[in-house]
Amino acid sequence: MDLSKKKCVPCEGGVPPFDEHKIAEYKKHIQPDWKVTDNKKISREFLFVNYRHTMEFVNNVANLAEEEGHHPDMHVHYGKVLIELSTHSIKGLSENDFILAAKIDLL
Amino acid sequence: MDLSKKKCVPCEGGVPPFDEHKIAEYKKHIQPDWKVTDNKKISREFLFVNYRHTMEFVNNVANLAEEEGHHPDMHVHYGKVLIELSTHSIKGLSENDFILAAKIDLL
Repeated sequence: MDLSKKKCVPCEGGVPPFDEHKIAEYKKHIQPDWKVTDNKKISREFLFVNYRHTMEFVNNVANLAEEEGHHPDMHVHYGKVLIELSTHSIKGLSENDFILAAKIDLL
Repeated sequence: MDLSKKKCVPCEGGVPPFDEHKIAEYKKHIQPDWKVTDNKKISREFLFVNYRHTMEFVNNVANLAEEEGHHPDMHVHYGKVLIELSTHSIKGLSENDFILAAKIDLL
């Protein structure tokens, strides 16, 4: 399963969020630095040597988000960005979150 | 006092953070939407109709931050950005925070 080759598909709700087994299965295919919180959210921290590098990363993630139609929350500090992924329409995690995580891992 | 005409100056610490009187004085000169937290931080939420507008704002704030050498924390959501300003070297608020807030108000 190469998640980075998949595309996010619109998620309007009506499907159940991933349970812990599904999450564990998908988590194997993204970088181990991603943390799962309450089976509802995955997050990863990225560090940079300066603000220019930080903002380059932020814009790369934003472009990816627009391409995929799936938008993470980004907490942007001088040399650190915390990315949080969740699928709001189902109040939990979907394949989209792991696809975007896998693509962010390649940036 | 037109804070938007001032420039941030390097703050390496060694000066006291603003007390509540100083904060109240400076707060008059920025938009009333800015909230003060524990006399240590000011924050303001900005709303946008879509992600493109959100990211335009984020990049405008980032450019301003680099010009001023003073960098806010930005919490970026699909159509919402929370800006938090504080002067880390003095663990509180300095004139720099209000200067940057005034300039962000003009974006």
